[in-house]
Amino acid sequence: MSNTAPQTLKGFRDFLPAEKIARDYVAKKITKTFELFGFEPLETPTLEYASLLLGKYGEEADKLVYTFEDKGKRQVGLRYDQTVPTARVLSQYQHQLPKYFRRYQIQNVFRADKPQRGRFREFTQCDIDIFGTKSPIADAEIIACTYAAFKDIGFPQIKIVINDRQVLFHYLNQFASEDLAVNSIIQTIDKLDKISPEAAIEELIKRGMSSSQAKDCLDSIKNAQPTDSLVDVIKTANSLGVSENDLIFNPYIARGLDYYTGSIFEIQIPIETFAVGSFAGGGRYDNLIEQLGGADTPAVGVAFGFDRIVEAAQTLNLIPQSNQSTQLLITVFDSSTLPYSLKVADQVRLAGIRTEIFPAQDNLPKQLKYANKKGIPFVAIIGPDEAEKEVITLKDMHTGEQSTLHLNEVVTKLSTSTNT
Amino acid sequence: MSNTAPQTLKGFRDFLPAEKIARDYVAKKITKTFELFGFEPLETPTLEYASLLLGKYGEEADKLVYTFEDKGKRQVGLRYDQTVPTARVLSQYQHQLPKYFRRYQIQNVFRADKPQRGRFREFTQCDIDIFGTKSPIADAEIIACTYAAFKDIGFPQIKIVINDRQVLFHYLNQFASEDLAVNSIIQTIDKLDKISPEAAIEELIKRGMSSSQAKDCLDSIKNAQPTDSLVDVIKTANSLGVSENDLIFNPYIARGLDYYTGSIFEIQIPIETFAVGSFAGGGRYDNLIEQLGGADTPAVGVAFGFDRIVEAAQTLNLIPQSNQSTQLLITVFDSSTLPYSLKVADQVRLAGIRTEIFPAQDNLPKQLKYANKKGIPFVAIIGPDEAEKEVITLKDMHTGEQSTLHLNEVVTKLSTSTNT
Repeated sequence: MSNTAPQTLKGFRDFLPAEKIARDYVAKKITKTFELFGFEPLETPTLEYASLLLGKYGEEADKLVYTFEDKGKRQVGLRYDQTVPTARVLSQYQHQLPKYFRRYQIQNVFRADKPQRGRFREFTQCDIDIFGTKSPIADAEIIACTYAAFKDIGFPQIKIVINDRQVLFHYLNQFASEDLAVNSIIQTIDKLDKISPEAAIEELIKRGMSSSQAKDCLDSIKNAQPTDSLVDVIKTANSLGVSENDLIFNPYIARGLDYYTGSIFEIQIPIETFAVGSFAGGGRYDNLIEQLGGADTPAVGVAFGFDRIVEAAQTLNLIPQSNQSTQLLITVFDSSTLPYSLKVADQVRLAGIRTEIFPAQDNLPKQLKYANKKGIPFVAIIGPDEAEKEVITLKDMHTGEQSTLHLNEVVTKLSTSTNT
Repeated sequence: MSNTAPQTLKGFRDFLPAEKIARDYVAKKITKTFELFGFEPLETPTLEYASLLLGKYGEEADKLVYTFEDKGKRQVGLRYDQTVPTARVLSQYQHQLPKYFRRYQIQNVFRADKPQRGRFREFTQCDIDIFGTKSPIADAEIIACTYAAFKDIGFPQIKIVINDRQVLFHYLNQFASEDLAVNSIIQTIDKLDKISPEAAIEELIKRGMSSSQAKDCLDSIKNAQPTDSLVDVIKTANSLGVSENDLIFNPYIARGLDYYTGSIFEIQIPIETFAVGSFAGGGRYDNLIEQLGGADTPAVGVAFGFDRIVEAAQTLNLIPQSNQSTQLLITVFDSSTLPYSLKVADQVRLAGIRTEIFPAQDNLPKQLKYANKKGIPFVAIIGPDEAEKEVITLKDMHTGEQSTLHLNEVVTKLSTSTNT
């Protein structure tokens, strides 16, 4: 560090206060909604036995798990997702957990992936899942909670597209064979939001279909109908507050992962800059927990793409400036006025105003410039006059206006204007 | 995982909902106070270049840093504390950060330490620091903020013991020599809350003092007086709300780490089960940031022992049961009453009640048992009668009382009784 410029590892990020405040704001909103829907928090360690993680995500993914040998010669790995550790928790604390465990988990995960725009080696995942029931109420709860979280952040338009793996199996099984698994076909279907139908047909031909089969295969999906259980899920979600216009059956929705067994859904924000891709996605995966070594446990859940959500919320100006940051700077004139500056700081903080006292002695223009640079909206100027009369000259840094006020007036003004 | 019982690595922990809710409650309180004092959040990556971390904490500590070679053959390491990464941030973003950077940071750190009672390999640190000023106002702000955080959690008694490294240097330099660094003497003084004066004298003799020197050395501290600048810090902290009775000069307080240069302090909670040890500790370290490769940057800060604080808060019953957990379970009778159950769920959630809907169909006793096991305080029983009359039979799981209420009455009752 002394000789070379200090830096973060590629694919890893520092979040300086302005960015961190925005992220915390969104995370708080999401957490509040999760709790409103009866989800309770779970935290698992950053490090796990490598044997727990490897072989769980598929061969390609195994390469992306950060693994190493620790000082006790144990093979260990960094958290890759939140589902596998939760499967361990379900198995390890079986008799302690409620029958229908519903948990939320917001932690960072690690992928030794090639860093590129919008793709990082450490990033935040927000998951909710309900374990232990096949009831469509559970699917609907997940969907309604997701919808409510996006609403609460303030997105003006939210579109949830939904399908059922059983719909895809029903229409696509006829095109599958020993050499062509139905899940491979589904992987091609899954790309239809990024590639043209022609390119999809080409890919299906490469997978072994004849040209006419490939065409029939795509056509078969076009007129697909939802299953009864999917209709149930949609109706139940509607009753739980999801507008009928915002929850749309779309038989082309496939979700890449092989482990889904029932409902599958994605959240889209229909604004121009974010037209492509989803902001959250999930579904029902009734076999995965058992496959991961747990007991036979049906499950349904969703994962939020936290980084994309924060980026979209910033683009749409949904994050209030004043939310968590400092509201008031109190100036220091000299040692004779310092006690009054300190008293004011103590009093406004007791009233809940987020306050910084200038931690040095410097001339007033420099103290104002400091507040300005930090984006602190109000400055309490305290000189000999103010100290003697026990008043405060409050400067609004936005308008430049100054007014002489009593302590309680300052509190009232700041409580209403910036303490959102 | 299929063949052996799944487990966490030794020294690592799962936090199941009840424990996680308690931890989140305390973290939220601490965060709120940090923000009240104008500290803004910072987040740094879990992984850093190993070269950043090694050689920064001393030889012994280097062994405790988790390091490994990543897939790109880079030597990397897991976060060991929050000071070194912040030193990197100060250097890397010098021109972006405010002159007096004051940040809080609450993240997990990793130590390849021998796990033992109360000592873990992954644990949470809460730090606040003010960089860029030697003013005693900064020391006092750190102390006042720490005091306010412990007050806000609800600790009935808080004792801050304070000293100044300059006091120790002043009285102890005369006993130091080329063969005996003053910091070695300080390390013995630091143990006086755990070992007897006799044992301390013995240790000083081992370090090379004569028996009478060792005795004189301890005696010299006994009547030590605070420096002028320490008196300033104490007075300023008092003005910022720290009661005079709770901030006590104690010349034996030494803090183990070599890097402190001025004020040093520890927070003690004088309750029987937690008589020994500190809950937070910090001080002024004006040379460390430069030693770590940054610019010449005076600094003062404190680190909270989050695990001990949570444990003490639980022991003293400072954490309300109902704080974040689910308030209401809504029962499901059959498919004919389901729409009304769903409607009630939607409505109470809109009113801010944390609500779970029973995600299955089962008989009422089982649904009540489920609520009981999960510790959900109220159950909204909805059968054909309730659905027809659009009312709710609300059962208080604590008293067993049942009453038939309208939706708005349920909301009022739950808002006042459990939504703390």
